[in-house]
Amino acid sequence: MPLGEKAGFEKSQSRYCGVEAEFNDDMPQLLNFNLSTGSFDFVVAPLMNPSYRPSLLEKDGVLPFAASDLVLSPSQWSSHVVGKLSSWIDLDSEDEALRMDSETTLKQEIAWANHLSVQACILPPPKGASCANYARCVNQILQGSNNMQLWLRIPLVKTDDDDMGANSTSFIDSWELWNSFRLLCEHHSQLSIALDILSSLPSLNSLGRWFGETVAAAIINTDSFLTNGRGYPCLSKRHQKLITGFFKSFNTDMVKLMDDLIVISGKPAHSIPRPSSDLAANNFDNNSESPQRHPLRPYLDYVGFLFQRMDPLPEQERFELGYRDFLQSPLQPLMDNLEAQTYETFERDSMKYIQYQRAISKALLDRVPDDKASATTVLMVVGAGRGPLVRASLQAAEETGRKLKIYAVEKNPNAVVTLHSLVKLEGWEDIVTIISCDMRFWDAPEKADIVVSELLGSFGDNELSPECLDGAQRFLKQDGISIPSSYTSFIQPLTAAKLYNDVKSHKDLAHFETAYVVKLHNIARLTPSQPVFTFTHPDYSTKKSNQRYKKLQFEIPSDTGSAMVHGFAGYFDAELYKDVHLGIEPSMATPNMFSWFAIFFPLRTPVCIKPGSPLEVHFWRCCGSSKVWYEWCVASPNSSAIHNSNGRSYWVGL
Amino acid sequence: MPLGEKAGFEKSQSRYCGVEAEFNDDMPQLLNFNLSTGSFDFVVAPLMNPSYRPSLLEKDGVLPFAASDLVLSPSQWSSHVVGKLSSWIDLDSEDEALRMDSETTLKQEIAWANHLSVQACILPPPKGASCANYARCVNQILQGSNNMQLWLRIPLVKTDDDDMGANSTSFIDSWELWNSFRLLCEHHSQLSIALDILSSLPSLNSLGRWFGETVAAAIINTDSFLTNGRGYPCLSKRHQKLITGFFKSFNTDMVKLMDDLIVISGKPAHSIPRPSSDLAANNFDNNSESPQRHPLRPYLDYVGFLFQRMDPLPEQERFELGYRDFLQSPLQPLMDNLEAQTYETFERDSMKYIQYQRAISKALLDRVPDDKASATTVLMVVGAGRGPLVRASLQAAEETGRKLKIYAVEKNPNAVVTLHSLVKLEGWEDIVTIISCDMRFWDAPEKADIVVSELLGSFGDNELSPECLDGAQRFLKQDGISIPSSYTSFIQPLTAAKLYNDVKSHKDLAHFETAYVVKLHNIARLTPSQPVFTFTHPDYSTKKSNQRYKKLQFEIPSDTGSAMVHGFAGYFDAELYKDVHLGIEPSMATPNMFSWFAIFFPLRTPVCIKPGSPLEVHFWRCCGSSKVWYEWCVASPNSSAIHNSNGRSYWVGL
Repeated sequence: MPLGEKAGFEKSQSRYCGVEAEFNDDMPQLLNFNLSTGSFDFVVAPLMNPSYRPSLLEKDGVLPFAASDLVLSPSQWSSHVVGKLSSWIDLDSEDEALRMDSETTLKQEIAWANHLSVQACILPPPKGASCANYARCVNQILQGSNNMQLWLRIPLVKTDDDDMGANSTSFIDSWELWNSFRLLCEHHSQLSIALDILSSLPSLNSLGRWFGETVAAAIINTDSFLTNGRGYPCLSKRHQKLITGFFKSFNTDMVKLMDDLIVISGKPAHSIPRPSSDLAANNFDNNSESPQRHPLRPYLDYVGFLFQRMDPLPEQERFELGYRDFLQSPLQPLMDNLEAQTYETFERDSMKYIQYQRAISKALLDRVPDDKASATTVLMVVGAGRGPLVRASLQAAEETGRKLKIYAVEKNPNAVVTLHSLVKLEGWEDIVTIISCDMRFWDAPEKADIVVSELLGSFGDNELSPECLDGAQRFLKQDGISIPSSYTSFIQPLTAAKLYNDVKSHKDLAHFETAYVVKLHNIARLTPSQPVFTFTHPDYSTKKSNQRYKKLQFEIPSDTGSAMVHGFAGYFDAELYKDVHLGIEPSMATPNMFSWFAIFFPLRTPVCIKPGSPLEVHFWRCCGSSKVWYEWCVASPNSSAIHNSNGRSYWVGL
Repeated sequence: MPLGEKAGFEKSQSRYCGVEAEFNDDMPQLLNFNLSTGSFDFVVAPLMNPSYRPSLLEKDGVLPFAASDLVLSPSQWSSHVVGKLSSWIDLDSEDEALRMDSETTLKQEIAWANHLSVQACILPPPKGASCANYARCVNQILQGSNNMQLWLRIPLVKTDDDDMGANSTSFIDSWELWNSFRLLCEHHSQLSIALDILSSLPSLNSLGRWFGETVAAAIINTDSFLTNGRGYPCLSKRHQKLITGFFKSFNTDMVKLMDDLIVISGKPAHSIPRPSSDLAANNFDNNSESPQRHPLRPYLDYVGFLFQRMDPLPEQERFELGYRDFLQSPLQPLMDNLEAQTYETFERDSMKYIQYQRAISKALLDRVPDDKASATTVLMVVGAGRGPLVRASLQAAEETGRKLKIYAVEKNPNAVVTLHSLVKLEGWEDIVTIISCDMRFWDAPEKADIVVSELLGSFGDNELSPECLDGAQRFLKQDGISIPSSYTSFIQPLTAAKLYNDVKSHKDLAHFETAYVVKLHNIARLTPSQPVFTFTHPDYSTKKSNQRYKKLQFEIPSDTGSAMVHGFAGYFDAELYKDVHLGIEPSMATPNMFSWFAIFFPLRTPVCIKPGSPLEVHFWRCCGSSKVWYEWCVASPNSSAIHNSNGRSYWVGL
């Protein structure tokens, strides 16, 4: 029974828990014991007798290595069994005979699993530090045509540099093994990780890397459990954090039975007092032999408890489930006209307009002292859309007791229709003048005290707010106020194997040189973000340019270990007016706001960063006569290509 | 006058020498002085006044930065002038105003050079260790549509690790700057190097790297010249070696006026006694003012002397000029039938057949002692083609006084026709039996004492000699001899920017996963080669397999500095019989043999190797039911993708 269902969670948020079993010729009995008696959702079981060795067989003999496929129905194989490949397989052994046997067996077992319609197989962990031949063989299978998932089993181990000295040969970081394996297999989308959770865990920074990887299953060994006061298994705080982290990081909207799993492994390591209630409950069942309680049931119960204890997702998060890690092209509101539905969505973001109202109120109070409260302030909403900022301005005026004359400037003729009807409906005709015009070209009849706009994209300037407000600045008084008064973009290096693979799946250069709006989820943020470009409004300097160039250096914390950078998350923070901010930069994000997801700048070739070697990144904002675009590159530890030269792949139209 | 023409070299082998000039508004006078008086072939000259700064100009003013385009004809601009961009340009300055001026000027000067039809421009050296913004700007130009060559000027400088300690910030290796720049520009084919040769040179290993790069021009400063006993300029031995190295490495077959140049730069640094003969020769020219000898003429003369002193190319090398760095698909003689012209070429390689004859003679003497010389040895030539090995065998028999019975087995029916006519013509009917059959399927009437074959490709086993000889082994006596008795392939990491670019130009994955036969020329061999796969014949072991796997570690000499690996050269060495070898591995290549060029295995992403970090490479020979293929990858310092998985891009048909 899925973990979530027990707690009355929605099905889409439930999790599945399996159990690792020994080889058993009698698969129906194995399933019955673990699923019916044990309440596990599936078993991870060897499909072939582990004593089988191809080289010991006589030629052309029948292979007596596995039970018949008939013992279960195809749907049982497919929904209740994850294949576990023989753990003796060692494709990088120095022993050539063992290597050859391993290759033959690997291919036979995969072929057999395919024949059974098993959805996924767990590959045994690489035996040593080298895994090239193993990867070559797995890659050949992956490049073939079948759809089975392959999960490479990786023990979650990293020795500290401090323990060993950086050059010690006994230094182990299993992430590096995984990284090497998946690079050899070209980030294949059917290859993911079954992570073995052991009793001791490496540092939090180093654990964090796995949240950017495609971890399909976390296998918790019974040895990793502690014992609580009543003799029951429980996990250390750090283990709890890791497991709930995986619960959260798994892509809940995508949950299929064979995805994002917890697996309990090992022999019972706790002797648990048989609860009397349990005895009583079973007493009515007198006909059968005393029903056996599954020896690993307490571990399952504990994992279920961890899951149920988690706070359910807030409504907005649940609404956004479908957007997690889904790559969207950024809006081009200047070049295209937004649709009603888009306005609708953004207008619902009340937190944003509360911030705007606060900023406008402060500006009005600064602009008009109490003793001159009857003076009229000319306020222009540029890019008024269907009117939410007009409303916020009027509410600010009411709140502060100031008088306004409002011009609502909007270039989208469809939005202007709605705007007219809103003004009529609300009876704002005396205060609000609607101007159906692009603010860059409007010939204003008077100058404004305050210009209010909401032209920011996820990366701040990426929807061309600077260019638009340069136009609007023409009709702002010399001492006038722009709300926002400034905004800054930020970037942050990410491990984001899933996003990288989604970009790669398009098989062209253009998608690798495009920035995407995305609800970041299955990612690891490797360092704090850093500011990139800042724009301030108004700006009357003579040599003003909206071109920008920034060089950034990121240092990944040394206890993280090596890490893979698949690209950069982009955010913005805007100063609306004085201390009233609005933004999505994680460390200072405006709470409960949903108008912006982050932006993602991919790298054509992911960059592996080793500890102590900084990541140097360059970002440019380039301006042409008809478009604005970004270029970006990595310059250290090695130089990448410059992405999106001349805006060849991705640009924003003026 | 080109350097070669003076010595009566063929035009295709001549070299051009230019001179670097200061800015001069009077371009015709500048050309006249340097070309007519000085005998230089072209000038490297600034096209704009170096005092020009865009930010100092009034807006919309006419740009008084250069002379009119009319002063020279387009063909003069194009054949006699290399543009030199303003050396003050610094796109990575911390000073934003200078950076903006630099960007504007760079683009204006390139646009002006384009307008003039200049074929190439020299970009000033990057000013500091960082060059990302410079590269971004140049890359934008390169990604545009013009055809002009851009040569990045790079001073040839590398401080020793020993001098500085590896972590010293004052460590400089200008190759790293170049490498970073070209990576940022994606190895663009119009971007190459103008290498500034200074008075002191780094180590030979480090110099060697440049021979694998696209060096368009070597600029020798007059300061770099020593003074000989008679007061004339000359170069140190090491400089001489470098310059003649460039003379050789330049792609002579491709020489165009604006390619592969020497440029003399700087002020005269030697006071040379005016030779009296010179005076006498000029005396008849009484009408004009006393003609001026060009002050840099002695430097040109010395470079010409260096060039003329070089040995002319041997005939075979001249024949192969057109093949230098030209990528060819390897032959598939098993799947396809060779054409007459191919046989013709290979049969002309007398050195190869001399070696075969020596090997066969030795084998005959070992097989048949002198006291049994009348015994007949059964010799089978498998893959007899048009008969050269039949002839070599008969000559060996004659030389050793042994008797032969020869079967000539050939699968190509076209070659069999020629073989029949040869046997008739030579009167060999009694000795030679022609078998028109694939050796793998021939049902031989008797067993052979000796099987002779020439089935080797550039990489040894790559034309499926192992599979063919497995077939032939069926009809070899248990104690019989195979000639060759074994062969081994070798690989060697290369810097090969030109080959990489040629592979890249196809813009697909398949070409990056294909091995090419190529006359290696513009390459740097970074380490000695290492053996990969060995096959021995006959091999009667029961678990015999022609699959192979080899892991190799290459250490680049520490004084090389960092280096780029674009791929691997492949070679073979064969033991024909006992000490009689045949092969192309550079350190032990059979001299004067031309049947095989090397093979080149490219890397999809070039790998940069830093000093002290070994290059780990894996090579596989994989066998399927209808094809044989190689897979390869780099596993360290970072893992590459596995190339050619399942032989998807490149394979040899069985």
